[in-house]
Amino acid sequence: MDKKYKIAVLGATGAVGREMIKVLEEYNVPVEELRLLASSRSEGSKLLFRGEEVTVHEAKPDSFSGMDFVLGAVGKGMAKQFAPHILEAGAVFIDNSSSFRMDPEVPLVVPEINAEDIKKHRGIISNPNCSTIITLMAVAGIAKLSPIETMVACTYQAVSGAGEAGIRAMEDETEKIVAKDAIVPTAFPAQIAMNVIPFIGSYTDNGYTDEEMKMQNEGRKILHLPEMKCTCTCVRVPVMRSHSISVTLRTRDVLDLDTVRAAVSDFPGVVLADDLDGRDYPTPLDTSDQDMVYVGRIRKDLTDERGITLWCCGDQIRKGAASNAVQILLKLINS
Amino acid sequence: MDKKYKIAVLGATGAVGREMIKVLEEYNVPVEELRLLASSRSEGSKLLFRGEEVTVHEAKPDSFSGMDFVLGAVGKGMAKQFAPHILEAGAVFIDNSSSFRMDPEVPLVVPEINAEDIKKHRGIISNPNCSTIITLMAVAGIAKLSPIETMVACTYQAVSGAGEAGIRAMEDETEKIVAKDAIVPTAFPAQIAMNVIPFIGSYTDNGYTDEEMKMQNEGRKILHLPEMKCTCTCVRVPVMRSHSISVTLRTRDVLDLDTVRAAVSDFPGVVLADDLDGRDYPTPLDTSDQDMVYVGRIRKDLTDERGITLWCCGDQIRKGAASNAVQILLKLINS
Repeated sequence: MDKKYKIAVLGATGAVGREMIKVLEEYNVPVEELRLLASSRSEGSKLLFRGEEVTVHEAKPDSFSGMDFVLGAVGKGMAKQFAPHILEAGAVFIDNSSSFRMDPEVPLVVPEINAEDIKKHRGIISNPNCSTIITLMAVAGIAKLSPIETMVACTYQAVSGAGEAGIRAMEDETEKIVAKDAIVPTAFPAQIAMNVIPFIGSYTDNGYTDEEMKMQNEGRKILHLPEMKCTCTCVRVPVMRSHSISVTLRTRDVLDLDTVRAAVSDFPGVVLADDLDGRDYPTPLDTSDQDMVYVGRIRKDLTDERGITLWCCGDQIRKGAASNAVQILLKLINS
Repeated sequence: MDKKYKIAVLGATGAVGREMIKVLEEYNVPVEELRLLASSRSEGSKLLFRGEEVTVHEAKPDSFSGMDFVLGAVGKGMAKQFAPHILEAGAVFIDNSSSFRMDPEVPLVVPEINAEDIKKHRGIISNPNCSTIITLMAVAGIAKLSPIETMVACTYQAVSGAGEAGIRAMEDETEKIVAKDAIVPTAFPAQIAMNVIPFIGSYTDNGYTDEEMKMQNEGRKILHLPEMKCTCTCVRVPVMRSHSISVTLRTRDVLDLDTVRAAVSDFPGVVLADDLDGRDYPTPLDTSDQDMVYVGRIRKDLTDERGITLWCCGDQIRKGAASNAVQILLKLINS
């Protein structure tokens, strides 16, 4: 692997963009040139990569010339705006936004689950929703044993899902609680410190949020289970980085718990932490700042003989976003 | 209602005991004498009731003579220890512990749901588990429309569920985070500030905790639905007082959402807060320090045509414990 690549990070100064730079370094990705792009506000600022300062430039239509890959860490609007320019420049766009995820021409990939889908790309590969990635990592081993027919998922989502603004709001509100100062919500629709908010994303007309519908829509595409039905409740909790998800799923066949635990444990990228009596279960704090998804509390669903209930945690910025994107990039390089 | 009553609070100095005293005052309960009992550590301390100081005494076997009612706000062990003495003294014991809840001779009561069960008491009436009370308040109106067959519940439980120690741990850990001091968990098995913990209560051999099994066991008894099946995941979240629960339930019949909303809204003690598009949904912060249970996010379960999904919040110390106990007492007085 002597070839080196020219890689741009679009949205380099946000929580996910900065982590992408860190992950590129940690994973020893063969980078010939790293181009950091962001909004005009960040023009001229500098970020470290392999001990050297790299200057951030304003992203413009002609910013992508010569690039092999562009890692996208921007919102829907900017991703849509820049995608044609990225494709025109001949680069492959690995996009973390939701813009292209459900496009039948665009692979939606969690490398451990459906790496083979990458090959079908026509210039864009989408990185899935963060809660969806973490949940699917936890259940994909089970789906291999027997197809998942339904999932009821309740999330406990970290503030990092709202980016730097979410992290700052949490820190700021926590300081204000201790100082007994008044709190005015900024990044979230209500105070998040010492609160939970059962509303993430935007309203859709079936009573679910768009964030909640991603579990079913993206889950079907990634697991290749077009009939899978998901009821999801997305809840923001006052936690910094790791998302937790409580999942009750029903498979086509009755599975025994030992087989399920072995399948979860054997799945790449997953750690089984499942000994309640020995106080071994995942928490967001224990699973932050790393790429592994932790799964525990595996037990029989008491409402359905084909049901399994479990709890999983994974870092939202890492496996939920930046690391998954860089893992896709590595699959492209090594294929 | 000219008659006045002699009432003891057993465990008067804890979070629930203190709230019971507050609720007795707020509800204008006709109290002739208030006797405050606690462990020997609190002997001689004073608490306010109706503007006057009442001295706390150590609870002893002979502490209950002359009492009409004893409100219990102590743990299982002390409740069991003192129950025979309370009965011997001729008082009615309204017990917040789990000691007698599943005893077929003991009514387990949420007054809005099964007040009629109170009449069967033989000296002890149990107050249900806090998450169970709040969840059942949210779904009891639906159960009247059509029996609930199954529930999948994921809780977001406040630290007050672990009493004063839980509240203090949360405050202390939050201060330490801001001061960047090291945290050593005290009331919970792990740091709770900026974390969530999927373990409450103690381990049982089906992989569920005893706390999680209460939803099914107590729920069946209170709703008079002996066949109801519940899968519950109990999770501690860094929230002070209100528990939140995400519930997906299946009824015997298919129900339409407008009928469900009307039934929830009409149920006594419940407030419908269900307009996602208008940003109306319950949060723990908005529902603290009051007795009402708030229900929102009512929508069709996408995995089952007979399924309904909803979100509810209620103050753990109030309706989840102290207020419910005093409401039982009022039913006894007024029956």
